[in-house]
Amino acid sequence: MFSLPNSAKILIQEFSNLPGIGKKTAQRLTFYILQCEKHKVFSLSQALKNIKEKIRNCSVCNGIAESDVCGICNDPTRDENIICIVENSHDILVFERTNSYKGKYHVLGGTLSPLDGVGPEELNIDNLVQRVKAGMEIILATNSNVEGETTALYLAKILTKKNVNLTRLARGIPIGSDLGYIDSATIIRAMEGRTSV
Amino acid sequence: MFSLPNSAKILIQEFSNLPGIGKKTAQRLTFYILQCEKHKVFSLSQALKNIKEKIRNCSVCNGIAESDVCGICNDPTRDENIICIVENSHDILVFERTNSYKGKYHVLGGTLSPLDGVGPEELNIDNLVQRVKAGMEIILATNSNVEGETTALYLAKILTKKNVNLTRLARGIPIGSDLGYIDSATIIRAMEGRTSV
Repeated sequence: MFSLPNSAKILIQEFSNLPGIGKKTAQRLTFYILQCEKHKVFSLSQALKNIKEKIRNCSVCNGIAESDVCGICNDPTRDENIICIVENSHDILVFERTNSYKGKYHVLGGTLSPLDGVGPEELNIDNLVQRVKAGMEIILATNSNVEGETTALYLAKILTKKNVNLTRLARGIPIGSDLGYIDSATIIRAMEGRTSV
Repeated sequence: MFSLPNSAKILIQEFSNLPGIGKKTAQRLTFYILQCEKHKVFSLSQALKNIKEKIRNCSVCNGIAESDVCGICNDPTRDENIICIVENSHDILVFERTNSYKGKYHVLGGTLSPLDGVGPEELNIDNLVQRVKAGMEIILATNSNVEGETTALYLAKILTKKNVNLTRLARGIPIGSDLGYIDSATIIRAMEGRTSV
């Protein structure tokens, strides 16, 4: 195999380390970078450095922030009596995109997964227990897979003691979908959770 | 819309400037970078800077190199009487991957495209004319689209005067393909170029 210049090989390797980027895409990106203007590449390089230097975890919700407390936790117009518990800070974006949720968040930083050595101590749960006050609504918005459900169950067990209103996202038929393509587990949940018209 | 920290917004924007990376992929990459170890991100950032600082064009073939002359032009085991003319340095990789071509290359740096203001002066043609000596084999390996064919025709007109053996890549049925899916233009070329068994 033809030996590419070293710096090109290294960049191809670095790109292929990113999720969803294979060898061929990494090569294509590297050759794009090669013919790109220098200042554009430098600003990408700088942006990568900056994000790691500037962003830290919000001391309240554990989401991403450039200061001690993130924009959402700092926002006085948001209802602080509703906390939506999510697995990671990316999930916050999913809810914010809808522009309809006006409560706060709490980022666990993962899910319980004993096989990978992730127990309750590895997650941001102590902080959560301190934040939760009686009378609040707590929405368990972990993913709908085994780890997510286990984590939600675990949290429910802890939080019920605190006398809060615990809720879970509704499970059912996604909007715009065709019944023929929906799996049976979802159909069962949708029947169980049917609402009167 | 929820306001992400500035450095995250900037990185999402920088990622979406890359080819084939849309807004959602850029977001996913940015959140991956956020949870990545610092030193890994810094090494990607450094690799981007390095490639622009170290790589230049080979003074002989115009391919990529870290020194004045690239590895292929410097390789005494390669036949310097065969030059394969390609559009850009990425195309060199396509041929080198096959491990079967043992001649040299010449990178044009694009194709003739009068509408985009790319004339013969913008391409690396003067250098090519100086390299070409009588008796050499010159392979026109530009792409098989309008711009590529136009450029090949233009080069053929210039190079025939130099008394060289001009060739073009064979056009025909790709290996492993099903005749039912091949377009008529390719079928016509494959019939015209049929070989005796």
